[in-house]
Amino acid sequence: MKKLINDVDDVLAESLAGFAAAHADILRLAPERQFVARRELKRGKVALISGGGSGHEPLHAGFVGHGMLDAACPGQVFTSPTPDQMLGAAQAVGGGAGVLFIVKNYSGDMMNFQMAAEMLDQENETVIVNDDVAVENSTYTTGRRGVAGTLVVEKVVGAAAERGADLAALKALGDAVNKATASMGVALTSCTVPAAGSPTFQIGADEMELGVGIHGEPGRRRVKLGSADEIAAELTGAILKDLSLKPGAEVLLFVNGFGGTPLLEQYLMVNAAHKVLAGAGIKVVRHLTGSYVTSLEMAGCSITVSALDAAQFALWDAPVHTAALRWGM
Amino acid sequence: MKKLINDVDDVLAESLAGFAAAHADILRLAPERQFVARRELKRGKVALISGGGSGHEPLHAGFVGHGMLDAACPGQVFTSPTPDQMLGAAQAVGGGAGVLFIVKNYSGDMMNFQMAAEMLDQENETVIVNDDVAVENSTYTTGRRGVAGTLVVEKVVGAAAERGADLAALKALGDAVNKATASMGVALTSCTVPAAGSPTFQIGADEMELGVGIHGEPGRRRVKLGSADEIAAELTGAILKDLSLKPGAEVLLFVNGFGGTPLLEQYLMVNAAHKVLAGAGIKVVRHLTGSYVTSLEMAGCSITVSALDAAQFALWDAPVHTAALRWGM
Repeated sequence: MKKLINDVDDVLAESLAGFAAAHADILRLAPERQFVARRELKRGKVALISGGGSGHEPLHAGFVGHGMLDAACPGQVFTSPTPDQMLGAAQAVGGGAGVLFIVKNYSGDMMNFQMAAEMLDQENETVIVNDDVAVENSTYTTGRRGVAGTLVVEKVVGAAAERGADLAALKALGDAVNKATASMGVALTSCTVPAAGSPTFQIGADEMELGVGIHGEPGRRRVKLGSADEIAAELTGAILKDLSLKPGAEVLLFVNGFGGTPLLEQYLMVNAAHKVLAGAGIKVVRHLTGSYVTSLEMAGCSITVSALDAAQFALWDAPVHTAALRWGM
Repeated sequence: MKKLINDVDDVLAESLAGFAAAHADILRLAPERQFVARRELKRGKVALISGGGSGHEPLHAGFVGHGMLDAACPGQVFTSPTPDQMLGAAQAVGGGAGVLFIVKNYSGDMMNFQMAAEMLDQENETVIVNDDVAVENSTYTTGRRGVAGTLVVEKVVGAAAERGADLAALKALGDAVNKATASMGVALTSCTVPAAGSPTFQIGADEMELGVGIHGEPGRRRVKLGSADEIAAELTGAILKDLSLKPGAEVLLFVNGFGGTPLLEQYLMVNAAHKVLAGAGIKVVRHLTGSYVTSLEMAGCSITVSALDAAQFALWDAPVHTAALRWGM
């Protein structure tokens, strides 16, 4: 295992310490690393809280700040955070207007967020993100997995919360954005969880995993490595089939690197996805490109298409100031 | 070679097409991919132009926009752009107040930028960046190499140009920031240039290259993989020795991923570098962390320390709106 680390047991603690030091103007790290919280809390605002296993950086802690999350709870690598982390975060950042949990659909996350929600003595709702169209049910999931589309949900709902939307409206908005968002990924190499010390899966030098999950879990099928155009056709085709978009539809195209794939290739995939979308008469009116929802150093990418409406695009465009997404301020 | 590409010969063209589509609000791609230019040019402003081999994305085209570069010339992967690219860029974005070229110190880049400067019928100056303290002279360089510190030079000088500084002042500022900036990197794996199809260098499963260049060229020495703390001590130690900083000095700490190293490890390196800097009495007052000056999918990172003065920090903080760096607007 070749990584820039010290003791395997200290990876998360040391990385979070560096993260908190680098972004001290935006956020603070709670004792015992329970959660990362926005430094300047806004009273009377619905508190948005997400979290999940680490190893997907900058998701979720990188999205804590103005216009996005109020807190994020980091579990160990690829492991759900515990209910007391979410409960502690909610008690720390809840501002009296209720708490909205945004949860990727994995069994461990679902169970632990639900326990926290039940223990919490504040009004709360949960938005479940399940944008991955690759497979129904999988290694860690009943139903579809939540993947890169989570960023879109957190950004749009975060902007609405910042503007003062109430809990019921935010829950409805989050569900609507999730429904309008679909993703699918491909892996060219495995990742290695530090505590495991060996690759999560084996893959041939000429193979790719189509529909891979963000923990390296299996997707639709293992096939010979295809061209960027073939991969874009498969991923984007599955997404368009799921969203049932009509020609003329306007979308956000989010090409997401999994951690080991450089921008040179990610932008090439943007170009490839554009061709597929143009062929279907879909207009790309917003872009996001980068390694935002990762699987450690796995090579590969995912494509996310989000068919937002005008009000939701305006929320996408609204100011955001977090470690990983920043514009308009 | 496992990459998200189509034909090897089309990698740069297709990637730039995706890049230009994704950031059409900020920039435009010139015919024949001569250069990427800022969409809204400001008359009467000194034009800032950089460029170099591709494969280091988001450097340089990702830094074209308000508060940074007016144009960037992309060469083929790890290959200098040609003089006519820089000449074409200067003629397109020069606004009558002169042109400042910002050039990383590699022999090919130096020669081709110099030829462009001689052919250009506008007043011009060149800032040469040579922040890499690892080695004097190397595979592609006479003198020290220009690496991640180039970003700092482009950001600070770009902000000053935006505020209306004249050519002589910008040349002096660029030289001063370069002198105040030092970097050193480490590679854990090689990268693979698409046109070559095989790794640039061989490295053992338990080895690292200390002082590696951003094309995978050799550095100080090949040694057994060390811990993050040991690596940070070596890199940061060499940087501090070069800069001769006194206790109490205030610096920007820029931990830069080379393309294949995830944020989890990059932030762990921030924490490790902090310990070394704190031990030397150096105060980190600004941070930048991410994969900004890359070597395709090479695993590893570099550390850059920039001992800016108060006016230069203010320029670092000034608004910027590019594909890869964006704040304050």
